[in-house]
Amino acid sequence: MKIAVINEVSARDKNAYIISAIKKCGHEVVNVGMTEKDSAENGLTYIHTGFMAGILLNVGVVDFVVGGCGTGQGFLISAMQYPEVFCGLIESSLDAWLFSQINGGNCISLALNKGFGWAGDKNLEYLFEKLFVDELGLGYPKERSESQRLSRMTLKNISQSAHKPMEEILSIMDKSIIKAIFAHKPFTDLIKANCKNKVLQNIILNNYMRGNL
Amino acid sequence: MKIAVINEVSARDKNAYIISAIKKCGHEVVNVGMTEKDSAENGLTYIHTGFMAGILLNVGVVDFVVGGCGTGQGFLISAMQYPEVFCGLIESSLDAWLFSQINGGNCISLALNKGFGWAGDKNLEYLFEKLFVDELGLGYPKERSESQRLSRMTLKNISQSAHKPMEEILSIMDKSIIKAIFAHKPFTDLIKANCKNKVLQNIILNNYMRGNL
Amino acid sequence: MKIAVINEVSARDKNAYIISAIKKCGHEVVNVGMTEKDSAENGLTYIHTGFMAGILLNVGVVDFVVGGCGTGQGFLISAMQYPEVFCGLIESSLDAWLFSQINGGNCISLALNKGFGWAGDKNLEYLFEKLFVDELGLGYPKERSESQRLSRMTLKNISQSAHKPMEEILSIMDKSIIKAIFAHKPFTDLIKANCKNKVLQNIILNNYMRGNL
Amino acid sequence: MKIAVINEVSARDKNAYIISAIKKCGHEVVNVGMTEKDSAENGLTYIHTGFMAGILLNVGVVDFVVGGCGTGQGFLISAMQYPEVFCGLIESSLDAWLFSQINGGNCISLALNKGFGWAGDKNLEYLFEKLFVDELGLGYPKERSESQRLSRMTLKNISQSAHKPMEEILSIMDKSIIKAIFAHKPFTDLIKANCKNKVLQNIILNNYMRGNL
Repeated sequence: MKIAVINEVSARDKNAYIISAIKKCGHEVVNVGMTEKDSAENGLTYIHTGFMAGILLNVGVVDFVVGGCGTGQGFLISAMQYPEVFCGLIESSLDAWLFSQINGGNCISLALNKGFGWAGDKNLEYLFEKLFVDELGLGYPKERSESQRLSRMTLKNISQSAHKPMEEILSIMDKSIIKAIFAHKPFTDLIKANCKNKVLQNIILNNYMRGNL
Repeated sequence: MKIAVINEVSARDKNAYIISAIKKCGHEVVNVGMTEKDSAENGLTYIHTGFMAGILLNVGVVDFVVGGCGTGQGFLISAMQYPEVFCGLIESSLDAWLFSQINGGNCISLALNKGFGWAGDKNLEYLFEKLFVDELGLGYPKERSESQRLSRMTLKNISQSAHKPMEEILSIMDKSIIKAIFAHKPFTDLIKANCKNKVLQNIILNNYMRGNL
Repeated sequence: MKIAVINEVSARDKNAYIISAIKKCGHEVVNVGMTEKDSAENGLTYIHTGFMAGILLNVGVVDFVVGGCGTGQGFLISAMQYPEVFCGLIESSLDAWLFSQINGGNCISLALNKGFGWAGDKNLEYLFEKLFVDELGLGYPKERSESQRLSRMTLKNISQSAHKPMEEILSIMDKSIIKAIFAHKPFTDLIKANCKNKVLQNIILNNYMRGNL
Repeated sequence: MKIAVINEVSARDKNAYIISAIKKCGHEVVNVGMTEKDSAENGLTYIHTGFMAGILLNVGVVDFVVGGCGTGQGFLISAMQYPEVFCGLIESSLDAWLFSQINGGNCISLALNKGFGWAGDKNLEYLFEKLFVDELGLGYPKERSESQRLSRMTLKNISQSAHKPMEEILSIMDKSIIKAIFAHKPFTDLIKANCKNKVLQNIILNNYMRGNL
């Protein structure tokens, strides 16, 4: 699995822990948000990182996005504005495993300041371990497995029906947000990679990243 | 504040606890989802309750929606498909207070089977107490208050830009879902009440509730 | 209720939050351990603070002791070495309320580094609010109330039977520990106050605090 | 490691989950308390199970005891009445790992009704996995490792100094408690096994288990 990690400004000092925890699970990680080396000034907020998550998942360059913020709620709400994003708020191993089994989503949001104290890095390790340990979407409890599978399929349809297409969202998004995210090199580098959705990729490359090319 | 509670099938036995906890805070509650008296057969899933939350908030008949499911993630993801919904996942008093201060949302999702054991009803009481104790949106920590206010405003704009309008979503939604929610009397009774968005209300009354009128 | 707060070295920076939270409940607080102004060198560890808790509860100068450490486990184990100490590990409002109802103890230990992040001070407020909100020992669930009352009485007897008396424990305790705690002025000041157990108080005043008198 | 599991009456329905979780870690388990097949009548309370924990650890027939109750606080307070018992309250993987590193105790108490909902059995698995994953007592954080090692040694001495010896405690314990625990065959069977403390074992065999021999 190819996983993008996108940290916003308030918890960028936790970025290295997330990267390390995912690597321990043996997955490929791309670090496209803020790191602890970045300064707070002009930092990416969850408005930016949620939008970046939406773009990455719609362009199909990663399989999974890991974001977060102080409590996890902000990134969650922000990322969920876009089509094709199915994001859970994950704080423990048990949250992680149940989300993988019941919701089988493609994005999680982490609480990186609330409740983050001694061995918070260990907690992240434990959480990712269980997020990826079992095949996604097997259902829990077992007797609700089929109902949950149908709900996931229905949600995918609703996500398409309820949102405008990503290219349209890009075209009407506030220019300062567009500018901020496409000025962030680790993010634009990833968009240039091998994406599943070539049409959307080309729209982005031609309309939003000319200056970066 | 006028609050709608919308329980789905898997945790309908917790409905009475939620109603009681909100009433203790002195708020007006309308119970529009499942209750413990309803049978599991043809029960509303979070697909339905999330959609109902979206409709209630867009039609402007309540100020706040409380939903949930086994872990809270399903209702959250489902409700967040719609414009004008800003939903947090709330498990503790601290979650509740921080969400009210930082995110100032209009919807919460509760984990009603995971971690719900002895005195789970007390935990709900404590949680609602802190959700409504301070004015929404004062920010936390204080130095990020203004940045958080701007983020909330931006999110509202993005929610409008990224979603189709609710009347369009209604028109393309799967008919079996439409049928299920508009067959649920406590929900349709509420839609007939005094709504802020008269245009949307009339569209719903004329196109989806004729049989119920 | 008169409550002593005894912080050890690793979480002394959280001391002011605890004091403030208890005061909000309207109880009298005496701050007898470390504060954030104290340096780490020669700091009191949970070995010391647990012993101090035991002395205060046996001499009867306070009704309740609040301690803690990084995870809460160290102070708990340390304080529980002594007769007449009934200590719970409390991390949330729900823990606090259930402990007050079921165990009706006279001491709690707090986790002050693990899980202590954004608004950790608020969490302490919420926790103390529910610790003291209802009469101690009413039992939970109701049907186990009488069985729980009997268990509390039996535990009191066992505590007397299983431990040596406090005066004997004092006489055989490692001299460096004795020296450290009786060199801590806020603690010795409290021991000079109005104690219920005059016999033990006089033993302490005459044998361990001469140098301080 | 040889581990005894001792469930009391209120959470005996969780016994099988605990046994299964420990076995997955590859440790030897002896089930000496209540099981879900036992009736509530004349059930063992945490008064009994805490005492049983104290006896097993003092007679040296197991290396570790796992107990618990509705919230975990009752068994904890009960077990901590006896010498040589170093018990933590463990609710999550992170609690488990930190306890193993900092406190290196020989007993844990589990919350088996509070917070025990969907996949509570999974949570137990995750918790035991991390309790036994690293060598006990390595310390956390690293810079407090030596101070923590000294605290553990000091606690062992205090435990001996502050308690009466186990044989004396047995002789003055309430007869109805003595009778109840030595009427419980899985417990007495274990006492007959290979114990490290032969002197205490013989005292028990000769004075409290004659009727069972």
